[in-house]
Amino acid sequence: MYINREAITLASANKLLDSLKLKSKKQTIKVEESLGYYLAQEIHAPFDFPPFRRSGYDGYGILAEDDNDFPKKLEVLAEIGAGETFTKRIKPGQTVRIMTGAEVPPDVDKVIMLEQTRKCSDNHVEILSTMKHSNITPVGEEFVQGEKLLELNTLINAGTISLLSAFGYDEVIVWQKPQVAILTTGSELLQPGEPLQPGKIFNSNGPLIKALVEENGGEVAYYGGLEDQLDALEDTIQRLTEEVSLILTTGGVSVGDYDFMAVVAKQSDQLLFNKLAMRPGSPTTAFVKNRVPIIALSGNPGACFTGFFLLVEPLLRKFLQQDSRIERRLMPLAIEYTKTNSYDRYLRGKVIENKVMLAGSDQSSALGNLHLTECLFKIPHDQKVVAGTEVEVWRLPCK
Amino acid sequence: MYINREAITLASANKLLDSLKLKSKKQTIKVEESLGYYLAQEIHAPFDFPPFRRSGYDGYGILAEDDNDFPKKLEVLAEIGAGETFTKRIKPGQTVRIMTGAEVPPDVDKVIMLEQTRKCSDNHVEILSTMKHSNITPVGEEFVQGEKLLELNTLINAGTISLLSAFGYDEVIVWQKPQVAILTTGSELLQPGEPLQPGKIFNSNGPLIKALVEENGGEVAYYGGLEDQLDALEDTIQRLTEEVSLILTTGGVSVGDYDFMAVVAKQSDQLLFNKLAMRPGSPTTAFVKNRVPIIALSGNPGACFTGFFLLVEPLLRKFLQQDSRIERRLMPLAIEYTKTNSYDRYLRGKVIENKVMLAGSDQSSALGNLHLTECLFKIPHDQKVVAGTEVEVWRLPCK
Repeated sequence: MYINREAITLASANKLLDSLKLKSKKQTIKVEESLGYYLAQEIHAPFDFPPFRRSGYDGYGILAEDDNDFPKKLEVLAEIGAGETFTKRIKPGQTVRIMTGAEVPPDVDKVIMLEQTRKCSDNHVEILSTMKHSNITPVGEEFVQGEKLLELNTLINAGTISLLSAFGYDEVIVWQKPQVAILTTGSELLQPGEPLQPGKIFNSNGPLIKALVEENGGEVAYYGGLEDQLDALEDTIQRLTEEVSLILTTGGVSVGDYDFMAVVAKQSDQLLFNKLAMRPGSPTTAFVKNRVPIIALSGNPGACFTGFFLLVEPLLRKFLQQDSRIERRLMPLAIEYTKTNSYDRYLRGKVIENKVMLAGSDQSSALGNLHLTECLFKIPHDQKVVAGTEVEVWRLPCK
Repeated sequence: MYINREAITLASANKLLDSLKLKSKKQTIKVEESLGYYLAQEIHAPFDFPPFRRSGYDGYGILAEDDNDFPKKLEVLAEIGAGETFTKRIKPGQTVRIMTGAEVPPDVDKVIMLEQTRKCSDNHVEILSTMKHSNITPVGEEFVQGEKLLELNTLINAGTISLLSAFGYDEVIVWQKPQVAILTTGSELLQPGEPLQPGKIFNSNGPLIKALVEENGGEVAYYGGLEDQLDALEDTIQRLTEEVSLILTTGGVSVGDYDFMAVVAKQSDQLLFNKLAMRPGSPTTAFVKNRVPIIALSGNPGACFTGFFLLVEPLLRKFLQQDSRIERRLMPLAIEYTKTNSYDRYLRGKVIENKVMLAGSDQSSALGNLHLTECLFKIPHDQKVVAGTEVEVWRLPCK
């Protein structure tokens, strides 16, 4: 089935995708399960912190009137553990034993640390010397009620969880991880664990895309094979647009008779592009159906990987209200690259001593270098590039 | 309960912990669930890859004898889809339609891409011109059978999963995430979602440590409160040593009457240290019971966070047969810091324009800056440090 195609540049493709209005969904989750999510709400302090005058040490609380002429013996009125309170009057000559983090009684002006005291009897202690500081943290020293604790869109890391927990938050509103459907060719091929058979291969693009989606903030809501009947494929895609935020496919976008994705794209609500002036992945196609973006990546592993980072990663991040984690920069090429093409070429690379070089093969069908790839770099069309030339580099958020 | 303590330096503490013989456990898991694990086996290619002569294009396979005098009309013998094979003889004047990725029949010497052909009838095609390359990937071009694909201890990322999948691996042997038990004070305090009560606080160290363990490669196998009876605490710890690889506690390590962790440590099989010549976290204690390391962190949030990265993170990584992800370097201080102490001080910092500065408060009780902390930096004991001084920096693997 021949489809008329007009190649656009990667920059134009990114612009088209970036202009899509995406709907970020909110979700309420338990704070203890929120690691790695992004806040979809601002967080304000529900109370002063600390919420009471807090003792910085294990020791004895004394009155200002007693803070002189050490050593001196004082009567121990009570013992205040963390979480306990003591609101009775304390008179000169009296003290209370107080633990780190406990609420300091209203009368107490200073806490003398345990190391500077000596117990005389069950209810008497000798204070050996005073201390310069009161060792009492005043109410609201760190945060006052209503103060902004966390900005909208903050990444929830371990420290964020501790802060939310300190303020008693049990649940928090976050941006839902974009729900992604993945359709790959290869499902008709061998399944993991099966013995190898003539002419057949194992599906590797499916597991690749699945892992890339998870590594980059998405959640795989559906995973299946590309139907090999046009009607069935259209039905599947229609149904998925009602369930997910983004659909990714690999394969079926070329010019062959079985490349139904190309036809589905052509018949969609809005065809964004069906050819890119780049290698690998020139037949990469993007369209919108039922307001859901669908990106049809090439079936070649190298092209699939490259297309994911150049086109899909920014979209996934946008659903999370975040910028792409890919860092763009110019870097000198450590090698020469003399193969030319009428399209810009995006190669899988690694960075050594601030220079970029090939990470293994430059073949789009290669899959032995995907796990070693740290960046992509561009060889402009119709150019032979000598070593030392500055090239455009996309540093990937790969682990 | 007063316990004799001798302060050692952080470097000595790290050396003691590093000398522990840790038992890394292996685990067999599904490849599709292996993202983020580390390989506990080398992976070799079980077969040549590609395993057959593979067509790089959708097009027509021709014999060398026919590779001349184009355009020419050929008889189409068959159509070979991906996963199919064709082993019959092909004679001069004949061709086969072949899809990208399909096995090229033995007689075929070149694949002419579809774009350079024109279909004449159901069983005839006109080849318009030849191509420079054969467009056939030979057997084993990327990997030969038995070749090493992945080294021991490789991180399993998306590319690794795709490579394992391409070779039909269903399961893989990985280093088990170290199973960690966490015991924190605070469990007697308020639970998330409860209303605030006088003198009480919410447990934030528990959620902090839990998230830090998860972010740094561990798995929380047990989470509970520190018992406030010595016997019960010893029983709990004894039991946990039979179940987990590492025990972390916060609080209870000071000099107070309720600081039972200090007593448990003193009575353990091997006390590594119970005082560090550093702030925050000088009472941080480490010991071994039943061959399981137990690190008792301070209950102050800042000290707990700092102690985790300086002492625990390298241990977690060692269980995974990996180096610490903390990057040590020297960096100029953007600010002056004139508070001195007889112990080295480790402050929570951030990096701006290649200079290090405080990330919020320098108080060990502060918890409002943990989520902003990118590094720790050291103010040497008894020194006032002027702006521009190079200080030791630990860049943290925080997100």
